[in-house]
Amino acid sequence: MDFERFNKQIDFIMEIDKVKDIFRNTILFDASRTENDAEHSWHMAVGAMLLSEYANEENLDMLKIFKMILLHDIVEIDCGDVFAYDEKGAVGKHERELKAAERIFGLLPKDQAEECFDIWFEYEDGITEESKFAQAMDSFMPILHNYKTKGLQWKRLNVTSDKVLLKNKRIGKGSNILWKYIQDIIEDAVDKGYLTE
Amino acid sequence: MDFERFNKQIDFIMEIDKVKDIFRNTILFDASRTENDAEHSWHMAVGAMLLSEYANEENLDMLKIFKMILLHDIVEIDCGDVFAYDEKGAVGKHERELKAAERIFGLLPKDQAEECFDIWFEYEDGITEESKFAQAMDSFMPILHNYKTKGLQWKRLNVTSDKVLLKNKRIGKGSNILWKYIQDIIEDAVDKGYLTE
Repeated sequence: MDFERFNKQIDFIMEIDKVKDIFRNTILFDASRTENDAEHSWHMAVGAMLLSEYANEENLDMLKIFKMILLHDIVEIDCGDVFAYDEKGAVGKHERELKAAERIFGLLPKDQAEECFDIWFEYEDGITEESKFAQAMDSFMPILHNYKTKGLQWKRLNVTSDKVLLKNKRIGKGSNILWKYIQDIIEDAVDKGYLTE
Repeated sequence: MDFERFNKQIDFIMEIDKVKDIFRNTILFDASRTENDAEHSWHMAVGAMLLSEYANEENLDMLKIFKMILLHDIVEIDCGDVFAYDEKGAVGKHERELKAAERIFGLLPKDQAEECFDIWFEYEDGITEESKFAQAMDSFMPILHNYKTKGLQWKRLNVTSDKVLLKNKRIGKGSNILWKYIQDIIEDAVDKGYLTE
């Protein structure tokens, strides 16, 4: 057994425990509290498994999608979660996350560091069909939470429907069907007063 | 779009949000709090991805392993988490979990309900190589947490080293290498006073 290799893997596994303490703005469906990145990643992975039939592309590599989803928020250990509608927070976000990806995935043995970095970068890049669908799920989940909790966080953070529509257009790149559903529930959220126009 | 089908999928996605509120005995590496099943499932999936090279079997179906891990604790919505060393809690556990699996996966459209149930059942059964490795990871992760937090929960719950060795033998069915490592750290935990003999 190559102990140097194994110890690096264990160090990485321990480091990413911190993902469980990165809390997002998304509120649980029972409205009890916000969720963290580990919970979000797990939920998003199950969601992707069940809703992949609605992806624009038919023959997606689900193994890669799972890896993307499992790894996509690990960079937030160094960068924190930036709320989707926080324009100030978005400035320089990609550069900060790139640096974080290099540090955190760099804890792994070289071959795995490269594999994980490449998967994360492909996700961030959003060019391949797998990354488009994974990104669609990343946007789909919090909107569903917001809608089903009657806009609790939208109201608290003064988010408007045009911002939600503008910021989440990428859902359509991964799934026109899910994007149609999201547009419908945003309209309904405005009608019901969960979201201001 | 088949709305009846889609609504069932959304209902399931909302139902499993409850997994985020099922807390386990495992303590985070920074010893700040226990973790829940959603966090555990995410962490275990990343761990499996990185440590699969140590599995006894070479050509594992990683897609199936991810699905097993993502779904394996959903039954605890109805049954709660039974601590690995709780012998009373283990009585009738399988029957209770079977009922829970039928109810919860039964929220999905029939084809997906069957697929998820089958994946969960294969995991529980522990006969296929994929399920052996997934189960090994399910046991590996909490021991690593316990060891790295200096036996905090072992001490609190009066767990002894023979119990840990007996209860976690299944790690060897999935990975002799990981089982050897676990045996070594258990011995070290006894030497360091993290765990009583």
